[in-house]
Amino acid sequence: MITLVIYDITDDIVRNKIAKTCKRFGLSRIQKSAFLGDINSSRRKELISKLRRILGKNRGNIQIFVLCRADFALREVIGYEEFNENEEIVLV
Amino acid sequence: MITLVIYDITDDIVRNKIAKTCKRFGLSRIQKSAFLGDINSSRRKELISKLRRILGKNRGNIQIFVLCRADFALREVIGYEEFNENEEIVLV
Repeated sequence: MITLVIYDITDDIVRNKIAKTCKRFGLSRIQKSAFLGDINSSRRKELISKLRRILGKNRGNIQIFVLCRADFALREVIGYEEFNENEEIVLV
Repeated sequence: MITLVIYDITDDIVRNKIAKTCKRFGLSRIQKSAFLGDINSSRRKELISKLRRILGKNRGNIQIFVLCRADFALREVIGYEEFNENEEIVLV
């Protein structure tokens, strides 16, 4: 199943940990605060549990969505997705 | 169908226009740069067309996802969603 993680976290350290965890689980960055990838249900649950632990009592919001193939096929992308080595968006 | 709009836009004016358009189409803010709501297919297409026009040649990325009920039921939310009158997240 395709998994989408979007987050809104002001603390740099926490935010970076969230991004690293998403990457470690095989998700790809699609926006500054959004990751997407195809992972199975048990891995997704593991990821959710890790994200929950990382956020802990810190301020912020993380949302995890699951998309079936049919839904994913309807995705629309406007503009460009571009990131540099530091995983920040490069606005060329 | 449930529609999720996520965006990554640095220009304040463009970003605000995107947010206002999402609101006008009946979507609710769930994160600083994410809106969610139940709109039909033709309204979604109209929204996409408007968002495309607003972004125009400006830098940024907007992604629109469609979620069926079964997928949406798997959504996980970690942390709080809180916004003030100005639609910015209130971190209490």
